[in-house]
Amino acid sequence: MAIAVVGSIGLDTIETPAGRVTEVLGGSAAYFALSARYFLPVSVVAVVGQDFPAEARATLQQAGLDLSGLEVSEGKTFRWEGVYSDDMNTRKTLRTELNVFERFKPKLPRETRALKTVFLANIDPVLQGDVLDQLEKPQLVLADTMNYWIQSKRAELLGILRRVRMLIINEEEAREITGEAVTHKAARAILSLGPETVVVKQGEHGAFLQGRDEYFSCPAYPIGTVVDPTGAGDTFAGGFVGALARMGRVNDRNLRRAVVYGCVLASFTVEGFGVTGLLRASREAILDRAEGIASMSRFDLSDTARILR
Amino acid sequence: MAIAVVGSIGLDTIETPAGRVTEVLGGSAAYFALSARYFLPVSVVAVVGQDFPAEARATLQQAGLDLSGLEVSEGKTFRWEGVYSDDMNTRKTLRTELNVFERFKPKLPRETRALKTVFLANIDPVLQGDVLDQLEKPQLVLADTMNYWIQSKRAELLGILRRVRMLIINEEEAREITGEAVTHKAARAILSLGPETVVVKQGEHGAFLQGRDEYFSCPAYPIGTVVDPTGAGDTFAGGFVGALARMGRVNDRNLRRAVVYGCVLASFTVEGFGVTGLLRASREAILDRAEGIASMSRFDLSDTARILR
Repeated sequence: MAIAVVGSIGLDTIETPAGRVTEVLGGSAAYFALSARYFLPVSVVAVVGQDFPAEARATLQQAGLDLSGLEVSEGKTFRWEGVYSDDMNTRKTLRTELNVFERFKPKLPRETRALKTVFLANIDPVLQGDVLDQLEKPQLVLADTMNYWIQSKRAELLGILRRVRMLIINEEEAREITGEAVTHKAARAILSLGPETVVVKQGEHGAFLQGRDEYFSCPAYPIGTVVDPTGAGDTFAGGFVGALARMGRVNDRNLRRAVVYGCVLASFTVEGFGVTGLLRASREAILDRAEGIASMSRFDLSDTARILR
Repeated sequence: MAIAVVGSIGLDTIETPAGRVTEVLGGSAAYFALSARYFLPVSVVAVVGQDFPAEARATLQQAGLDLSGLEVSEGKTFRWEGVYSDDMNTRKTLRTELNVFERFKPKLPRETRALKTVFLANIDPVLQGDVLDQLEKPQLVLADTMNYWIQSKRAELLGILRRVRMLIINEEEAREITGEAVTHKAARAILSLGPETVVVKQGEHGAFLQGRDEYFSCPAYPIGTVVDPTGAGDTFAGGFVGALARMGRVNDRNLRRAVVYGCVLASFTVEGFGVTGLLRASREAILDRAEGIASMSRFDLSDTARILR
């Protein structure tokens, strides 16, 4: 029982009010895998260039990830550079160099094709479709996407939505896919496009899960000293998918708990630059923060039936 | 046992993607009072002009509010006009006419001075101080404020913070008062300015409560068809203060439940233009939505101790 992720691995240059780092390990597949591996073994399908630093590879290897699907291609590794606003709720991309990622054609190793749980991170929906075609017995396939694909490859993306079980996206993307201005209406509209469940990431506000007859809202674990929000969304997805696959059965009870673990894992990522915060998460701290979210969202309404005049 | 609110009553012209209304009853004291009165009697201290429409006054009267502190002054009633963005998360003020509100000097009727629970809605902190001076035995005094006063009357506002028990504000205001970029850090910093509890309103994301040893996060009740968000924050405050005063004892259990009722009441306001949605809230619907928030935020972590590898 393992999880496959197909996405990007790159070198990020990040500036936040807390400081700046240059060409550190990043990419959706890296954050997802380093998060999900707390729950289950993870196979990474991605591409890097010949310049991919040995330390970055060592970080992935020491985390116990299966890198047999990590292709090393002629050329340079994907690079991204961005700067965050003072409140870190918005960011500006200064530079995107696709490099080897531009010609990426995901090829799943034989063992990875047999995996039942697969996360299609934010890549071209055409490539997401190629991955789906390679899967032998998909049971729990989840996808992410972004504004760029919603605008430029809408038809292909809608085709993917019909083929995946769950979609994990952020609020703006939910609204953009559906054209619904109100997020909750947008989430429900996505259910008519294919997925049985949609999980909407709300950044510092947590996340909510919308199913046909299910709605669950989970607060973010409050972090006083946010250092770098990069990768928090992919980390959330890793925690959500990892916990859900580990629990085995997909039902409302487990879906809710998976959202909680997604929020917990994301809280570690924002505490350090790049993947450093996520790497520092201990078993004890993860369980502690899950209990923390439970106690910070708990209340009882007993004796309030006569609270109204 | 009743509640006093000191704030604005005005005529709002509002445009949202759902439509437009002209010169409808609005103002912080109106929303607060029409919300809190579901829990306890409310005395309104505010000023209107001689042109204040009979229907608007009738709306307040039929809701059972004590209007003995509603001064009718020579001149025109306060007017505000604004237009909301497509997702209704931001709005632009097109026009603010203070009119009689410009010379407002709150004078509390004798019986109102004796009330123990008082909400100082968003008005000049100098006037908030005048009200505090008139109170004979204040026990639960809460205040709101806005960017304008944070910038223009900072010293006076800090003086108010030292005199009130709780502050109810939104995320941007929490950050602006403290200069902290991260909302949760800002909320904790506010506690060192005087209030023992701060409640931070997060719009469509709900609200959280921060005390010295307490943190509670409550999701918004999800509304698919938002018509007009005007007054949702003051409605939240009315539900929070009303429920808390009704329950009597200020402890963590009751504070949490009060936040839930604040979110519930706010959900009615956004469903109609002006105060129409709030007026339509029935006892059954209020209790139903409180249970709704309970069921949408509930989860259990039992059997997850071995969820990690």
